[in-house]
Amino acid sequence: MSEQPPSPPTHTLHICVTCRPKGAPPDAVRDGRLLFEAVAALHADWPERHQVALNGVECMSGCDRACTVALSGPGKPSYLFCDKAPTPETAAAALDLAAQYAASDTGVLMRGERPAPFRSGILAKIPPSTP
Amino acid sequence: MSEQPPSPPTHTLHICVTCRPKGAPPDAVRDGRLLFEAVAALHADWPERHQVALNGVECMSGCDRACTVALSGPGKPSYLFCDKAPTPETAAAALDLAAQYAASDTGVLMRGERPAPFRSGILAKIPPSTP
Repeated sequence: MSEQPPSPPTHTLHICVTCRPKGAPPDAVRDGRLLFEAVAALHADWPERHQVALNGVECMSGCDRACTVALSGPGKPSYLFCDKAPTPETAAAALDLAAQYAASDTGVLMRGERPAPFRSGILAKIPPSTP
Repeated sequence: MSEQPPSPPTHTLHICVTCRPKGAPPDAVRDGRLLFEAVAALHADWPERHQVALNGVECMSGCDRACTVALSGPGKPSYLFCDKAPTPETAAAALDLAAQYAASDTGVLMRGERPAPFRSGILAKIPPSTP
């Protein structure tokens, strides 16, 4: 018997690849791109990768608050986090946060339970379309 | 034959009812509440009300940028708009914007096509979870 392929992920972790801090040279590699690549390297072997897709985005309207990271999932609030540094710590924390989000029935991410780099800097929490 | 009841709305227009501009007295009626009530009065007779639900929300993390208005819909980006005045013009424009959003296959709201009060002040545009 052949194995069934896993169903596609139902949640998505979005990272803006064009984000750069104010004053950063526009021709240099963007901080958002660096953060995306750091997350992508971890995501490739991440046990939850079949639940949470990784999506590189060009702009989520947080241009003044680079780097930006967002989460969306069915029937859950969408979150946009800002002011994130493109570090290995942020990359690992983004996946921890995404795992929390996917595992939660409501998708609500309480401040005290979030990984340290995501305890501050929420630009938006938008409820789902089916309350 | 009895008529089928309309199916529930698939899109939602969210308005933060606790939003208030910086320095506004916390005990006064909130600007967000005023905007919500102005929209609710129009929504009651709005031809698109079976497509777009109205949702009063307590906080969407845009506290520094009152009033805030958001849109969400299946397979569409979620938007959070900020810095909106609680006026009849904003209320009518919010419904026009919501109708555009519901009618669009992609949900992408181009700046030049949006009603005037919503051509500026986007805090977030978060892609859907199923790209």
